[in-house]
Order: sequence, then structure tokens, then C-alpha cells
Amino acid sequence: MDKPKSAGSMDDNNLKSPFFSTRASSSSTPGYLGAAIVARGHALDPLPPLVESFPSSTKLELGDLQVPVRRIELSNGDTCDVYDTTGPQGCDLQAGLPKRRQAWIDARQGIEHPTQLWFARQGIITEEMRFAALREGHDAEFVRSEIARGRAILPNNMYHPESEPMLIGRSFLTKINANIGNSAIRSDIREEVEKLQWSIRWGADTVMDLSTGKDIHLTRQWILRNSPVPIGTVPIYQCLEKVGGKVEDLTLELFLETLEEQAKQGVDYFTIHAGVLLRYVPMTQKRVTGIVSRGGSIMARWCLAHHKENFLYTGFEEICKLMARYDIAFSLGDGLRPGSIADANDEAQLSELRTLGELTQVAWRHDCQVMIEGPGHVPLNKIKENMDLQLELCHEAPFYTLGPLTTDIAPGYDHITSAIGAALIGWYGTAMLCYVTPKEHLGLPDRKDVKDGVIAYKIAAHVADLAKGHPGAQQRDNLLSQARFEFRWQDQFNLSLDPTTARSLHDESLPADAAKTSHFCSMCGPHFCSMRITQDVRDMAAKDEGMAQMSEEFHKHGAQLYVPAE
Amino acid sequence: MDKPKSAGSMDDNNLKSPFFSTRASSSSTPGYLGAAIVARGHALDPLPPLVESFPSSTKLELGDLQVPVRRIELSNGDTCDVYDTTGPQGCDLQAGLPKRRQAWIDARQGIEHPTQLWFARQGIITEEMRFAALREGHDAEFVRSEIARGRAILPNNMYHPESEPMLIGRSFLTKINANIGNSAIRSDIREEVEKLQWSIRWGADTVMDLSTGKDIHLTRQWILRNSPVPIGTVPIYQCLEKVGGKVEDLTLELFLETLEEQAKQGVDYFTIHAGVLLRYVPMTQKRVTGIVSRGGSIMARWCLAHHKENFLYTGFEEICKLMARYDIAFSLGDGLRPGSIADANDEAQLSELRTLGELTQVAWRHDCQVMIEGPGHVPLNKIKENMDLQLELCHEAPFYTLGPLTTDIAPGYDHITSAIGAALIGWYGTAMLCYVTPKEHLGLPDRKDVKDGVIAYKIAAHVADLAKGHPGAQQRDNLLSQARFEFRWQDQFNLSLDPTTARSLHDESLPADAAKTSHFCSMCGPHFCSMRITQDVRDMAAKDEGMAQMSEEFHKHGAQLYVPAE
Repeated sequence: MDKPKSAGSMDDNNLKSPFFSTRASSSSTPGYLGAAIVARGHALDPLPPLVESFPSSTKLELGDLQVPVRRIELSNGDTCDVYDTTGPQGCDLQAGLPKRRQAWIDARQGIEHPTQLWFARQGIITEEMRFAALREGHDAEFVRSEIARGRAILPNNMYHPESEPMLIGRSFLTKINANIGNSAIRSDIREEVEKLQWSIRWGADTVMDLSTGKDIHLTRQWILRNSPVPIGTVPIYQCLEKVGGKVEDLTLELFLETLEEQAKQGVDYFTIHAGVLLRYVPMTQKRVTGIVSRGGSIMARWCLAHHKENFLYTGFEEICKLMARYDIAFSLGDGLRPGSIADANDEAQLSELRTLGELTQVAWRHDCQVMIEGPGHVPLNKIKENMDLQLELCHEAPFYTLGPLTTDIAPGYDHITSAIGAALIGWYGTAMLCYVTPKEHLGLPDRKDVKDGVIAYKIAAHVADLAKGHPGAQQRDNLLSQARFEFRWQDQFNLSLDPTTARSLHDESLPADAAKTSHFCSMCGPHFCSMRITQDVRDMAAKDEGMAQMSEEFHKHGAQLYVPAE
Repeated sequence: MDKPKSAGSMDDNNLKSPFFSTRASSSSTPGYLGAAIVARGHALDPLPPLVESFPSSTKLELGDLQVPVRRIELSNGDTCDVYDTTGPQGCDLQAGLPKRRQAWIDARQGIEHPTQLWFARQGIITEEMRFAALREGHDAEFVRSEIARGRAILPNNMYHPESEPMLIGRSFLTKINANIGNSAIRSDIREEVEKLQWSIRWGADTVMDLSTGKDIHLTRQWILRNSPVPIGTVPIYQCLEKVGGKVEDLTLELFLETLEEQAKQGVDYFTIHAGVLLRYVPMTQKRVTGIVSRGGSIMARWCLAHHKENFLYTGFEEICKLMARYDIAFSLGDGLRPGSIADANDEAQLSELRTLGELTQVAWRHDCQVMIEGPGHVPLNKIKENMDLQLELCHEAPFYTLGPLTTDIAPGYDHITSAIGAALIGWYGTAMLCYVTPKEHLGLPDRKDVKDGVIAYKIAAHVADLAKGHPGAQQRDNLLSQARFEFRWQDQFNLSLDPTTARSLHDESLPADAAKTSHFCSMCGPHFCSMRITQDVRDMAAKDEGMAQMSEEFHKHGAQLYVPAE
């Protein structure tokens, strides 16, 4: 096996550097992150530094493995450590991030199938498992056993040494994925790299590069070299570009070649629509919205055009062999997922799910890690069936769902329609939630949409963790609620998912700094503040030794606790 | 019984008219709605006319009862009628809305307890019941029976003849409430009337005026005279203003006097915290966030100060008698609702719920309509217990919940944290969902927050209706998804909850008018559009008489259907 050097520098793979190099040669610009970038006629503000997004927070790297954590310092001396996805800060984008896993990877040379699943099955706890266990607050042996059983995956292509190991599995924190990527209509590498950085800033655990436009290889290279989180792709997109958009010209050979190309760049998981079988395609004929997965529709068309079985299915073992060599995880794509409430849980969808279950066992035989993609558009009452069937048919491989959206009638607000479904299916056991932004169905997400989508999904994932009773999930809620109750406004903001937004909404009503220490807010004003009155009630009770004396006590002391109206 | 004339004009109750009259005397201003209003140093744009918010929609009034409906006209000749809360448009705000129920009310003079519950129990189907039945697409007799059993309410104070009858009950469409109202910190009647109009524009079914600041009576008068939806209040707020903020000076007499004042103005339902009993107060001592209901904290303080039982509880029958005279519905307040995840479903909350169940039966004896308020902050896994206990303990009286918020850690996004809980509890059977805006915990909602809150809750309510299988709920989803699949972009926008937002998000990527008829969008571009490929697949299948011929067919016809890449 070759030493993994192709991921080592930007110059490999004959990369052009259309904007970074231009910028570097312009002597007076203060570097990429410091400059306002003009794209498509409007200025994109540079990303603010981390400390502006998270005041009173410090990034720490704990222990010998340097596990990242963000520590929030509170005004009362308490601290709250939160899971951190932001990666190393202030790195030069040309050089990429530090290759923190390189030594671990190098030590494994000569092993044919160097996958985390293989190691786990051998009873070996890798550095990646230890690292991820520390992030989760779990025992490393438990992490190993979950991976060995196929109930969790640790996606980490050996050619992506920049990645910080993380787990996708229902025994662990619920994860979220952010999709980025350009299309033929909108194409701008600069914007995509910034979207990557912006999505991990707010908590994306993995990022999928769904680019379909120009510079698909180059875009991916910039993303990978600057990503501390696993990167997923849908390789059939690049294949289709290579055949000029002619679906019927796609072949297994071209697909394997493309996988190899992306594998060497360091992609951590591939979405592969190997479950779209020829005989399932007619099942979509009566649907309201047919096939809504891009990959699914491409493979359906290929099957019909050739009247042959899907080559991703017939060639699945070859694909497994390739992916095992790099430890790339399967994300078995749900090409027949429902695209509308009317189509949810239908024969086409559930037939494909059954096939994905069969393929899971094939992949496991090759020591490949596997997760299963899920819908889509599903009404609340049909969500549990999805989860239950997936666990049964796919042998507990982690479920990775898009939403699901729980109604079709709110384009422009699909981060909300889908966060509802995502929270529910997360509670039921989905391991990773693929975000949906407000632009879903309408256009490609810009930076604002990416943040809106990530925050909505951080909410959904945390709501799921709370409902599952994940150990430690509730600590942050308790600390924030205590801060709220004690009128520690800054602590309330700083403990929240988005401190700057919380602060600015507060300041719209009460901008004065003094209001940050006020024992009331603009909602109720001082007379009607329930929190304040409750404090008074507690003071009254504390002074009382028996309920009988309470009335008298109040008239002695309590009456002055309350500020009379003007 | 007096003829209900006090609601008749703005001049009753010695109202001052601080801004409408000023504006009227300024000859060159184009009237209230046409002028930009400057408040607190920044300009508020006038509300756009209805047709700008809902292009290709027409408001219709159907049948002899003139039941309002909004008809969306589609480009393919189809139409979609949707429930409409917007009320008469273009009315002069001084004169108020037309008094559509006045003749029905006048005909009932001499009846001592003219409540819908009384009529329903007599087997009488009122005009209000017929009207509401038509809005819901239900049989009027079914509506009567649901009201008679206490499972639904039809809030409609006889002094609010402008209201358009509607139902709150779990057999009907899930309703949403929007809270508005000023505080001592922010006070502006103009803004509150606009928030009312803005909230019903986007679909609020009832509105609560929670004003606690100056001009509390006058604000309410302007709101009532211009509201086609039932208006709720929390009368203890005004009582507290009357005693200068001194909780211990509150009395039942003052409370009854205030109820009478608000009753004559036309308030349709009162939130009354009669379940906060003296013995429950100590149960909140160990909570993370104590008592977070304003009304609840006021009553708890009163109980402790006097060491007496809550006068709203001891005087409950007197309150019932008063409310029955006007047909004002009870909204039995959950003064001890949890204000944090940690406090959910605790002894204090559930003890109060049991008391609310007892009070429900007392109110029913007086022919009063009743709904029960619910939490609050509840993790997903504890929501169902709330619904189940409420149905059992409160004898199936409609449940009316605030959210619930499913995590505490996202101030600034609590419309989302709570829409998740609202959708779930709505599915389980909650009849009305009280919205939460992004400003929750941070400040008073402005117009933008009101819209964000209402849309999030229209989503939650519709998601609940879909999951409950409400007849007809899915039609709009299907029409929108068909439009989406057929690239009828304008129809997709116009069928959505917020057409202007959907359109503007689309236009950010593809602003050209031509793109509105394009068979792709900026997400995927033409090559990767799954909808387009699916259409091609269907065309291919339609031309085929057997799967065996499909491949050949494709090469004859299908190959040209796909636009090759450039």
C-alpha cells in the first residue's frame, strides 16, 4: 500500500489555485480571512474570528490526544465544556490544516484493510477511537464494541489526516451534517470554503460537498485540506460531469476510477445509490413527486435506458474492495426517498431500504463501515415506522436522515418543517441528521442559510439527546436556565447556541449595558417579572420557619422587596 | 340583560384616541394604513395590502353566513381554498370592523346564560356553530355535540360582535394563538394594533393582549374593535396596575370589577390562575427556575403574603357567574408550568393540573366554556404524559399549550425549539398552540418576530393536522408538491404559507422571470435535476409496452430528452 502522500499539499493533483494565489500576490491585502471578498457582484464580509461568535469561550485541547473542547466561562466562576467542531483556527488556507492523524496513519502501513471496523473486530482500540471516546465522554472499549457491531462508524479516510475523529451511532451524541457545494448555475470555490468554515463554526459534525458545477475536483481539494470534520460526497455527480451529462454513458469502470480519484483526495464517506434496482423504478410511476434524489434519478434512468440492473449494485463488491483500502465509509443512498408527504413510506422507498440492508452485510464482510440514508418528506405519524424498519432491515447500522420534512407547504421555512421531523427521528434513534436550510426547494444556500440550517439542526440534535437521556446532555440546559433565573444575562447569551443573535435580540429592546444586569427585561418590565417575584417568594419562605408566620413575616420584610408602581 | 351596546363604538368607555385622531386631523396624510409610522426613532413601514402577501389569492365569503375563505388560483386552472383568519380588509380603524354577529346576539336577549355551551346542551345549533362548522368542513351537529361535551369551545363574548366564530377542540383543525401587548418598557398602541393585523394576516386564530404597561384599557379597546379573531387577556395584569404593583393589595372584588370592565369591552377568553394553591407554592422551592408564569408568581406571592388560599380559587364560582353572562371562555392558567427542562412534569405542575380539572367541572356547572393552559419547557420524551394526564384529569376540555419548548439552550431561536414540541403535542391532541417568537426570553416581539412566530406555529399546527389525518389537511401539500414536480414555480410559491418569502429566496439565485418557468433551479442546475430526469423516466416508461423494449425505445427517443452538458 502506498504511503498516503497525495493528500499532503495543495500542489498535488495539479491543482490550480484561482483565488488564493491571486490574493497572495496582491501584496497589500491582509490575507484571505481578513479581506472582504467580492463575489457575484456583492461583497461577502469576512468571517468574524471565533471569539466574536462565542464570547467568553476558550478553545482547549485536552490530554495527550489533544481532544478539542470549547470552554464557556461564566460570571459566577462556573465553566461549561461543550463539544467542539471548529477545528484549528487561523491556519493558512494554502497550507491547509495540521495533519493531526498522520503519525497514527503512518504506523499502520502494510495493513491491507486499515478500517476502524477491522481494528474494532480485532479487539484493537485505535487512537481515533480513544480520541472520539474522549469527545463523547464514553469509555474507549465501548466505542470499539459499537464500531465492531456496526452500530457506529468513525469515518476517516487515511488521506484526510486533518480530520478530528468523531462517531456516528445512536449510542453517542446525535450528529448533524451540512451540505455545501456549487452547481452549474452558481459556482465559486471561495464561497464553498467559507461555507465549510461557517458550518463547522456553528456545529456541523460532517460536511457533504455536493458540487455539480465546474471545478468539482479543485473545490473538493480546497474543502478537504481545510476541513477538521469528515467530508462526504456523491461520486456519481462527478461521473456524470465526466460523461458530459449523458446518463446512459455511465459505467462501473468510470465510477471506480472516480472513487479512486476522490479517495486519494481524502473523502471520508461516499453516498452510493446501489439500492435503486431496475424493478423498483416502476414503483415510482404513480408517485406525486416521482424520484427526488439526484443520484436516484440518475441511476433509475441508467437502468431503464440499458434495461440492466444498476451497476452500483452488480459491482458492489468491487466498490467495497476499493473503499476498504482507504477506510472510506459507505453512506448507502436512499435514491427512492419520498419527496412529498403523499409518497412517504411507500413500496418504492421500503423496497430500497430492504436492499440497503442486504448491501450493509456485504460491505461489512469487506470490513467497510456503513451508514444508511433515510428520508425525506414524512408526516409525524409515519416517522417511527421508518426508524423501526431501518434498525430491523439494516441490522442496526447507523441511520442518517434528511430531515424528514413534516409538511410540504412551507418552502422558505424548511429548516423548521424538517427540524421537527429531525428531532423526532433523532429521539427514536437516528445517528446523524442531514440539515435542511431555508433555501431547500428554492435555491442553493448562501452563508446565512448555512447558519440557519446548522442552528436549527443543532437544536434538533440536542432535543433528541435530551429526550434519549444522553448523559450530560442536560447540563447546558440547566446552567443556562440557572443563569436566566438569576438574571445573569451575559451567561445566558454565552451558554446559548448562538450568543451574538441572543444578545442582539435582547439589545433591540433594552440596549443599555445596565440592562444586562437588570433583574427584569422588556418582556414584562419590573412589576410583572415572574422570575423576580419568585425570588421574592423564596426569600419570604426562607425567612419563615412555619407557614403560619408567613403573613406576618411578609409585612415586616417582604413588603419592601417589591418595587411599587410609579 | 342589557343590550350589548358598549362594544358599539370607540367613544364608549371614554376612550382617548391618541394617535388615530391626531392622524385624522392632519389633512395631508393618506390615512393610518397608508402612512409610514415613526415609533421609537425608527420608521415602521405600513402593512402591505393582502394581495401583496398572497398573490393570486381572492378572499371569498361563502353561503348565507358569509364564511370567509381564501381561494388560491393556480396556473393550471385548479383552485385551493384555505382557512382564512384575515378578517374584513380596508376598514376604517376608528369605526372598527363590521359587527357581523350583532343580529344573532340581539336575538338572544333575555337569556340569562347565553353561552355556546348552554345552547349546545339544549340541543340548539347556533349561527356561530353553523359558521364555524362551515369553516372546518364539519357537520354543524357534530360541532354542537363537541361543544356540549366540553371537548371544544367557541369563544365569542357577546360584546365582541366583530368576531368570526371559530372552534378550539381536538376534533377540529389545530389552532394557534399569537401574544401581543406592550409593557412598561415599550408602549405603543399603534404598534400593537398593527401586530394584531399582522398576526392574523399570517394565520393566528386567536390573539392574546398581554399588555402590562400604560393605556392598558385603551390598547385593548383598539385591538378588540379591529379584531375578527377572539381576543384573550390575563385580567390580573390590569388588576396589578390598579393597585400600583402591590401584589398583597389584590382582592377578589377588584378582580371581579376588572373582569366586568374587560367583559364589556368584548374580551373572549380570560386566563385565570385559579389553580395556584397555597400548598403548591413550596413545591416550587427546589426548582431550577421557580415560577415563570407572571400570573402564577403574582398569585403565589399573594397566597404567601396573606397566608390564605388563592382568591381566584375561593371565589371561583362568582367568577363563573360573571363570565357566563357574557359567554367568556375560561382559559385556566398554568401558573406553575415548568420554565426549564429540569422542572418539567414535576409535582407542582401536575398538582395544579389536577386542580384545573376540578375547576373545569365547576365552570361547566355554570355553563361556562373551558380550555386548559399547558406548558412550557418539556423534553420530547415527557410531552405525551402531559397530554394524556390533561385529557384524563381535565375531562377532555381542550388543551392550549405554550410550545412546549424542547430545550433551553437556544434563546433567539425559541420559535424553533418550541415548534418542535408544539407539533408533537398537537399531534397528540392539543387543540390550540400558543406561539413563541424568536424574542422569547429576550424582549417583546416586534412585527418581524410576530410573523416568524406565527409562521413557525402554522407549520406546527399543520404538521399536527397531517399526522392526525385531519380530513382535507393533505390536499394543500399535494397541490404544492404537484406544482413543484411540474415546475409550476408561481403555483408552488402561491400555495405556500408565505409566498413572498418563498419567491424572494428563489430569486436570490435565479432572479430572471424566465427562471420561473424553468424546468430546473439553482440547487442542481439542468443536468442534475431529479424532477426533470424523473419526468424523462416517466416519458420513457409511458412509451414502453414492456420492460424488455425499454432500452431500444430509449435510444430511439429518450436520448434526445436529456440536454447534454456544454
